[in-house]
Parts: sequence; structure tokens; C-alpha cells
Amino acid sequence: MRELWLVGIGTGNPDHLTRAGARALCDAALILVPRKGPEKSDLADLRLAILDAVGATAPVAEFDMPVRDAGYDYAERVSRWHDDIAAIWAETVSKAGVSGPVALLVWGDPGLYDSTLRIADRLTPRPRLRVVPGITALQALTAAHAIPFNSVNGAVTVTTGRRLRDHGWPGEAETVVVMLDGECSFRGLDPGGVTIWWGAFLGMANEVLEAGPLAEAGPRIVEVRAAARDAHGWIMDTYMMRRDPS
Amino acid sequence: MRELWLVGIGTGNPDHLTRAGARALCDAALILVPRKGPEKSDLADLRLAILDAVGATAPVAEFDMPVRDAGYDYAERVSRWHDDIAAIWAETVSKAGVSGPVALLVWGDPGLYDSTLRIADRLTPRPRLRVVPGITALQALTAAHAIPFNSVNGAVTVTTGRRLRDHGWPGEAETVVVMLDGECSFRGLDPGGVTIWWGAFLGMANEVLEAGPLAEAGPRIVEVRAAARDAHGWIMDTYMMRRDPS
Ligand SMILES: C[S@@+](CC[C@H](N)C(=O)[O-])C[C@H]1O[C@@H](n2cnc3c(N)ncnc32)[C@H](O)[C@@H]1O
Ligand SMILES: C[S@@+](CC[C@H](N)C(=O)[O-])C[C@H]1O[C@@H](n2cnc3c(N)ncnc32)[C@H](O)[C@@H]1O
Repeated sequence: MRELWLVGIGTGNPDHLTRAGARALCDAALILVPRKGPEKSDLADLRLAILDAVGATAPVAEFDMPVRDAGYDYAERVSRWHDDIAAIWAETVSKAGVSGPVALLVWGDPGLYDSTLRIADRLTPRPRLRVVPGITALQALTAAHAIPFNSVNGAVTVTTGRRLRDHGWPGEAETVVVMLDGECSFRGLDPGGVTIWWGAFLGMANEVLEAGPLAEAGPRIVEVRAAARDAHGWIMDTYMMRRDPS
Repeated sequence: MRELWLVGIGTGNPDHLTRAGARALCDAALILVPRKGPEKSDLADLRLAILDAVGATAPVAEFDMPVRDAGYDYAERVSRWHDDIAAIWAETVSKAGVSGPVALLVWGDPGLYDSTLRIADRLTPRPRLRVVPGITALQALTAAHAIPFNSVNGAVTVTTGRRLRDHGWPGEAETVVVMLDGECSFRGLDPGGVTIWWGAFLGMANEVLEAGPLAEAGPRIVEVRAAARDAHGWIMDTYMMRRDPS
């Protein structure tokens, strides 16, 4: 594998794909596609729909994500898991027996809360990397609500559910966007003067949106989220919170 | 104007356009294009290249950006300017005499440090708004450097040059991305333990990249930026800084 292209595909809508992404998928010699998670079949369908829509003709090599070892601390467990994934990529590509650039479809943008770049760094010899940016869940969220990401000259902190639980509202931040939150961690905040914009399955046919003052929208989101998750068997959600100017 | 579509076009590369963006430009009844700034002709060319590439056939209505009034405080001046722009949009559309959705090409993503949504809010009657997300300068930056936006489970603060000058490094932030900085405001920071990734004209043919420890890369960026700006007559740049884990 001399060249590896990480192609951001957006967050579930085939129309999020960029012209650069479409071209990369058409120019690749091999397309690597992971099989994983509870969302397995929905997401596999989406990937095939994208390849189909752009008319990609390269062979598609699917690979199974390895299981994470138990029995190590968190960092070591993740590190070993990334080693295993890199090994599976290398093996899958070598089995496919093609030469030329390999493309990997990456959810959203390859830079945002995604391990693909870190895994690619473990390949030896290290292939030449090319990153094709993709629409992120943050953009899908603000677009769906038709709201700005930032206030005028304002700063925005992008963080995770775990950090929000462990550290609370980040310092002086006016706007906070939270990803990777399986637990509606906004429940741990003082809701006074905070507005929330929430979205699940952003960009997808089953997109769900809620917004309002955190005090009243928060409990509603907890319910809507649970119902949507039950209905689909899995869920992906993201939200933004803004403090009223004081 | 009953429907207004804000279409994110990415940061200067026609291939940043998404399939949704291309479709919106093809389905619109009228396309509004601003004429503005020192970068005027380069950017006008880019917009025409995009319309051409997607085969958009709707009439294009160009409008001149109004001048900002002098003699008010900053907030009032911006507010009046936005009123003026909204009035010019309405007038341009009504002169064009078409009915159907109006599309406005917006640089990058319409949500990120852009006034378009705030201006659209001033239109009366307020049209139905649709936002089509676009690749941002942040994504063009991390893609060009092939680096992740965040560290594992880490938070990122997105801010402006002015805020960085006024408030210094934002609180506990590990990663900071700075936009709208005409003054290399990183010069005001203690460079110890900070790495910077910088890019100008991201995604464009004349893209320039620099990276390294802030102490040595900072002065280099100041020079490279000045030279690139002289060569082109204008510049747009964005950078990310990360503190080494301590
Ligand atoms: C592993 S991260 C990947 C993010 C992705 N690289 C991006 O650019 O959006 C997964 C998180 O992204 C968010 N996410 C991704 N797709 C989403 C969608 N369609 N709707 C809502 N949230 C989504 C959720 O917060 C989820 O926990
Ligand atoms: C008014 S803001 C618009 C941002 C845009 N909406 C986006 O999503 O990237 C302009 C700022 O974006 C950044 N920017 C936009 N395009 C860029 C490019 N091609 N290269 C570097 N920076 C860019 C610069 O920091 C610039 O000062």
C-alpha cells in the first residue's frame, strides 16, 4: 500500500459527498470498507449507495473490525486495538492483490473524533496519506437548525460527552458542541440561561431535531432520544449549547 | 423571495462542493453572487468555475456589497451594514423578476464565522431558509496537513485572531484553531510547548503550508505570510495550535 486516501463521506447523507470525494472513490484502485457495530447494515447500505451514486468501479474489500482486548488500561487497550486494525488493513489490501491508491471511506470528516489518521500512522512502511475533507456532524447540526456555529467574534468549544461529565461546562466558553455522548451529559449542567440545539441521525432520512431552553428542552431530548434509539436499534446524536449573553 | 438557500461552497476549491450543493445550484431559480473585497476577481472566477462545473443554468444576479457606515460603534455599524445587505438582496431578487428558490453561494460553511444567516434573519417577510453545509477552512487545514482536529477525547476551541489578542490562550484548551486573524496573533503567546499548523489559500492552487514548534515556525510563518500576501494582493489564512501533553 503505497498510497492511502482517507475520504470523508459526510454523516449519513450520500449527498454530503464532495466532488473531490467522488473523484477519489472513482480513481482508487481498491476501496476498503469496515464492517462494524450495531448500526452495521444501515451503514453498509449507505456506503454501497455512495459508491453506486458516484459510479465507483474499483473492487471493494470489506474487513471485520477486530475486538478490543480486555485486561489493559484504557489507553493501552485503544493503542493495541489500533495496532490490530492497521494489521488488518495491510492484510486486506495485500490479499486483494491490486496495486495503486487505496481509498478508505471515513464517516464525517477524517479529522474529527476519528481514529483513522492515528491508525494509518502505524502502517509500516507508512503509505503516502491524502485526506479528503468531509461534512461533519457539527455542520450537519447547524445546517439542519439553520443556526450559526459561533456568535459574532465568539469562540466555540468542541468537546465530548465524557469531558462534559468530568469537567462540566468548559471554562469561559460561550458555545459548546458535544459529540460522542451516549448519556445526555447535558443533564449534569445548571440549565439556567442555556439554549440547546440537538440532532440525531443528522442528514439521514430519519433525522430528528429538538431545540429550546435547556431547562425545558433537556428532558424532552432525553425522551425523544430514547424512543428514536429504541425504534432504530442504535443512535448517533450531537448537540450545541449556547449561554445567553449576560 | 419565498425560499432562500444558503449553499456552502468550500474554501476555494471547486471540488469542495458537495453533491447536495451542486444539486441546489442546479435547482435554484436564481443565483445571487456578491462582488466584494480585494480578492474580488479571483473569487468571482471561482464562483463562475463552480457554476460552470455543476452545469447550473439559472440566471446569476450579481450585487455590490454596501459600504459600512462610519460614525457608529462597532456593533451598531455591523448591524446597519447587515440591514443594508438584506435590502440589497431583496432588491436584486425583485429586479431579477424570477420566482422560485434563490441560492446564495457562501464561502466555506454558512455557519462558521459568516454573517449570511444573520442577514437572512432581517428579510421581511422572512423566506424559508435552507442551509447546505460546506467544507470549512478548519477541515481544509487539517486535511492539508493530514492531522486530526482533536487529540483522543480532547476538546478544541475555535476562536478568532481578535479574541486571541484580547484574551490570550483560551483557558484550559489543549487545541486552538484561529480564524479571521490578519495579524499573526500567535506572536503574543508564550510559544513554549506549543506546535502550530498553518495554511493560507487552503484548497486553492496557491495553497501554502507551514508547521512546527511555535518558537521556530512562528517567525517563519510571519515571513511566508507577508510574501504570499504581497504576491497575491490578499490572503486568507487559518491555523491550529496544540499544547504538548504535560
Ligand atoms: C466517532 S465520532 C465521528 C465523527 C465524524 N468523523 C464527523 O466528522 O462527524 C461519532 C460521533 O459523531 C457524531 N455523529 C456522527 N454522525 C452523526 C449523525 N448523522 N447525526 C448525529 N450525530 C452524528 C455523534 O456525536 C457521534 O457520537
Ligand atoms: C469570514 S470567515 C469565513 C469562514 C468560512 N465560512 C468557512 O467555513 O471556512 C473567513 C476566515 O476563514 C478562513 N479561511 C477561509 N477560507 C480560507 C482558505 N482558503 N485558506 C485559509 N483560510 C481560510 C480565514 O481564517 C478567514 O479569515
